[in-house]
Amino acid sequence: MLHPHGLFWLHPILVCVIIAALALALLNFGNVKRIVVGKPIRSRELHGSKLKLTWWIALPVLAADLYSSVAYGPEAGITELAPLGNDVKWMIIPITASTVLLLMILITSYIMGVIAYPNGGGAYAISKDNFQRPWVSLVAASALMVDYVLTVAVSVSSGVQTMASSYPVLAGHETELSILCVIVILFVNLRGVSESSKVFAYPTFVFMGCMLFLIGAGFDDEVHHGFVQPVTPPFGTIPEGLTLMLLLKAFSSACSALTGVETISNAVPIFRDGKNGAIKAYIALGVITGITLLGFAYHLYVRGISVNPNNTMLSQLAGDYFGHGIVYQVIIISTFVVLILAANSTFTGFPQLAALVASDRFLPRALTLRGDRLGYSNGMIVLAALASLLIEVFHAQTNALIPLYAIGVFVAFTVAQLGLFKRWIRVKGSMWRTKAVINGFGAFITGLVAVVFAVTKFTSGAWIVLVILPVVIFIAMKIRQHYIEVADELRIDLKTVHPEKHRIVSVVLISGIHRLVVDTISFAMSSTPDVIALYIGFDDESIERMEQKWEAWGAPCRLVTIKSEYRSLLYPLSKFIRRLETYEGGKPDHIQLLIAQFVPKKWWHNLLHNQTSLLIRAWMLRHKDVVVSTVPYHLRK
Amino acid sequence: MLHPHGLFWLHPILVCVIIAALALALLNFGNVKRIVVGKPIRSRELHGSKLKLTWWIALPVLAADLYSSVAYGPEAGITELAPLGNDVKWMIIPITASTVLLLMILITSYIMGVIAYPNGGGAYAISKDNFQRPWVSLVAASALMVDYVLTVAVSVSSGVQTMASSYPVLAGHETELSILCVIVILFVNLRGVSESSKVFAYPTFVFMGCMLFLIGAGFDDEVHHGFVQPVTPPFGTIPEGLTLMLLLKAFSSACSALTGVETISNAVPIFRDGKNGAIKAYIALGVITGITLLGFAYHLYVRGISVNPNNTMLSQLAGDYFGHGIVYQVIIISTFVVLILAANSTFTGFPQLAALVASDRFLPRALTLRGDRLGYSNGMIVLAALASLLIEVFHAQTNALIPLYAIGVFVAFTVAQLGLFKRWIRVKGSMWRTKAVINGFGAFITGLVAVVFAVTKFTSGAWIVLVILPVVIFIAMKIRQHYIEVADELRIDLKTVHPEKHRIVSVVLISGIHRLVVDTISFAMSSTPDVIALYIGFDDESIERMEQKWEAWGAPCRLVTIKSEYRSLLYPLSKFIRRLETYEGGKPDHIQLLIAQFVPKKWWHNLLHNQTSLLIRAWMLRHKDVVVSTVPYHLRK
Repeated sequence: MLHPHGLFWLHPILVCVIIAALALALLNFGNVKRIVVGKPIRSRELHGSKLKLTWWIALPVLAADLYSSVAYGPEAGITELAPLGNDVKWMIIPITASTVLLLMILITSYIMGVIAYPNGGGAYAISKDNFQRPWVSLVAASALMVDYVLTVAVSVSSGVQTMASSYPVLAGHETELSILCVIVILFVNLRGVSESSKVFAYPTFVFMGCMLFLIGAGFDDEVHHGFVQPVTPPFGTIPEGLTLMLLLKAFSSACSALTGVETISNAVPIFRDGKNGAIKAYIALGVITGITLLGFAYHLYVRGISVNPNNTMLSQLAGDYFGHGIVYQVIIISTFVVLILAANSTFTGFPQLAALVASDRFLPRALTLRGDRLGYSNGMIVLAALASLLIEVFHAQTNALIPLYAIGVFVAFTVAQLGLFKRWIRVKGSMWRTKAVINGFGAFITGLVAVVFAVTKFTSGAWIVLVILPVVIFIAMKIRQHYIEVADELRIDLKTVHPEKHRIVSVVLISGIHRLVVDTISFAMSSTPDVIALYIGFDDESIERMEQKWEAWGAPCRLVTIKSEYRSLLYPLSKFIRRLETYEGGKPDHIQLLIAQFVPKKWWHNLLHNQTSLLIRAWMLRHKDVVVSTVPYHLRK
Repeated sequence: MLHPHGLFWLHPILVCVIIAALALALLNFGNVKRIVVGKPIRSRELHGSKLKLTWWIALPVLAADLYSSVAYGPEAGITELAPLGNDVKWMIIPITASTVLLLMILITSYIMGVIAYPNGGGAYAISKDNFQRPWVSLVAASALMVDYVLTVAVSVSSGVQTMASSYPVLAGHETELSILCVIVILFVNLRGVSESSKVFAYPTFVFMGCMLFLIGAGFDDEVHHGFVQPVTPPFGTIPEGLTLMLLLKAFSSACSALTGVETISNAVPIFRDGKNGAIKAYIALGVITGITLLGFAYHLYVRGISVNPNNTMLSQLAGDYFGHGIVYQVIIISTFVVLILAANSTFTGFPQLAALVASDRFLPRALTLRGDRLGYSNGMIVLAALASLLIEVFHAQTNALIPLYAIGVFVAFTVAQLGLFKRWIRVKGSMWRTKAVINGFGAFITGLVAVVFAVTKFTSGAWIVLVILPVVIFIAMKIRQHYIEVADELRIDLKTVHPEKHRIVSVVLISGIHRLVVDTISFAMSSTPDVIALYIGFDDESIERMEQKWEAWGAPCRLVTIKSEYRSLLYPLSKFIRRLETYEGGKPDHIQLLIAQFVPKKWWHNLLHNQTSLLIRAWMLRHKDVVVSTVPYHLRK
């Protein structure tokens, strides 16, 4: 695939570096940012008129993540069994059915969540509220964050694969196209797209319509040509080589269709009629998704569709019924759009979660900052970079990503259900026993699925998640510890600690006598009485010449010259500062190092001036307790 | 070839970035540098005891570049004709013979150069000395620099290919291995290897011995089995499809064997008996190279060796005579070592030339700085990075690089010869007419070869060089212009311009009241009477809280608060500074911006603290005439 050796082929790490650099550059500087990201928005607009939606509009807006998975869930399941041949094809029906059963359990459990947290509460908020120990909620948070990254990677790759199945001209470029999509989604989100925008309802409606139409067309076909057709594989035979392990593997892969169930419970506030609307939406979503999954899987069986890595089953089935005409095109394109929307919704979820966790000091503080357009830009950039990295490493092969994917979801599900279970027992309230049983059972089932995942998919990648989660949690704990220590260290008693005047010695590093030096020494003399000009020469002649010139100039302040036998500025300078620091008669309280710096008009001129000052500054700040002052000189040409 | 999609496969640009970053990091910081590069050497050791060599030791030391080319020159020539079939094989003899003729002309011309510049003078020095206009010498310099880069790429790739021909386990990894070699050579050179080190004589001696032994073995074989053998292709037939263009192309490819002739003339001072030694070395080198080229080409013809991209002709011939035993191994390994030495010698030539050109202000000044070990480290790093880039782009395919290669050499040859020609006419001296005729003829021939190259190889890559040369020259002229302008701008009259005391206003950016703020305000108050603490808040509450806290603290200086509706620090700060700059009643002469900066103990802690201060510093220095002072705070934990 692709032209791996071409000059313009990009390496994964490079891609991420470029995305990050580009995004950061855009966010910090320049006019380009205004064009791409748009004008900044005032903070107070954040709490402004947030559009509330009726439940049947909110449903498609929030459902993209879950409902889009129907396009790849059943296929992911049967792919595991495909090597067993034609006899195994019927098993797509029981596997999908058990997925639907699990979906029902999840939805019921999540409705309990909506009842408990009508202001919206993700797994992290729920577990933080119900578990004392921070690591439990961190399990949920890190599982969800890993999962969000995977959602972007899986949804986008799957969307692009769907397109490539139908438009062969795209085939072989899946990786680049997927990364391109991620970049576009990133920039759309940096501009700021409200999660509750109605616009997102339409593609999901169209896609739902298409899927239901496809299922209807299937039944019509079967009414005319029989429910058992020549291509229909035998039903009910136990294929040779089928093991329980394989079956569980197929089941867990198919469960990837269930990711995204949590979105509605996170977004209760956007419903016009609050939690009732959310519950209605959950029920409707469950019904539609169930029908779609079962109907789709059934027709796949009747038409005996095989797994083909170059043509998704959805594309094959649609082609079977409608040829490759307009209906087919609409199905494929709406699938693509909905999968992209699923990735897009993650660009709201991940940064919000990261900001929440960061505000609890478990992640770098930079994640809590809102960008120009009020979104958590840093979180978005991190998400896009990680997802692009995954896409590159796995070459946009969705199936390779799925084992990594679903385990995180189910771990987070389990923690949230357990939290709710604890809550009912603690808070009680009406029918608390029923609710506790529901969530307890939910926790048991999702926990079981998580274990099944971990076991069956261990060797094919699940171990990565099982390694990553503890590592992420460990790092998060370390981060919090650091923040707390720093805060303790910085805290002062306002009554006793006050700024005081000190004695400062200024050292001006000079390379000759010219306009920059005049400016810098002027500044130093204006700010402190003790100014030392320091000249570091590489040979005796240049030092002697400097001393003579200094005399001729009238010696405006004390000049110290040092010969650097090793042609280094850093070591003699550092030695000189050590001498000042330990100077017996009148050790200064502060040492200020003044460095002149060229600021050229054109950026490439920077290459022409030694960047020694930057180096000295970085080294000094890191290793010495000196104040480094940079006196800029703006070149006129 | 390779595993282009593996996670660990490196992209060319990435490779260069990594090399550069690594080398720069090594050169600037840390203890690793001490281990890899070694202890710094004092400047005075530069002019210390430079070893002088007798001509027959200097010969192999300086000959690696030229003599190593015999391993690929004839092959490069006949490769161009290979598609014409078996009938064309005899042409390797006339083509090689004309190459040898050209070599003789070059050596004669260069001996004139040695006579004219007994202190050593490369093409750049010669043309600078004899042409008024700087662009002429820049043509020579840029052609040579392009050529040095290509020498590294071609020699290393060719060496690795030779090894891979014989040790198939290496095949398929040529690109990585070549880059690895470049990196090793770079670090060896950063440690500092004297060009005149005797050690380099031995591998070249061994290789010369091997080549002569191979030729002897060939004659022995022919004495026993006939000078026309069953495998010998017909002689003298004009193969179908042979055009003048094709012939010239083959000739110019074969001329790639002639690169490196200039090394002796650049290094006259290392000969114990000066220019006489150099002349002796030149003559001996010409004789040995001529014999080797002709003998090697003749046996290739007799044994009817074909071009095989996976097995060099040298390896085939050696295998033919000696099987794959010990003799074969010695030949192959010594070929490899000598080709690596050829690349290695360039790591002295390129940085010296770049430093020379940079000291004439045509290149960034950083190229004139000597590193810890007295070598021009920056030049070495640039060379290694560019050569690695070329190797990656061309996937270590020597033949693909050759069209780019030889044109630069011959352009530089021509300019140098023309310079010598002008010199004889100007300076005269004994036998000046003969010398002028020799160099005039040399210039004519090398110029002709350059034109033949440019025409025959235009489409296969020579155009790149023809585009690069003018671009490099243009940039060089621009660089010089910039340096001259800056020097003019910075020059001051020592009698009239002196430093003066000014009024400074200090602005301390604060984010709260804690230990860092105490330190920073203390420093500001100690250095200037006018201190303003500036607090930029994102909402009214935080600003009010700050103001109250400030009062409670006893308001050590004036506090200004600004509300940033767009959550940006940069814009309100920049606006505030503009207000100070244009403040009617008492505009300050200097504005000092003080920023506190965390210095964590562990590097990764940097990720946990907003790097806003770096951003503000960069932006302010670039856009405003303010002095930015960073007050470090070293975290204890």
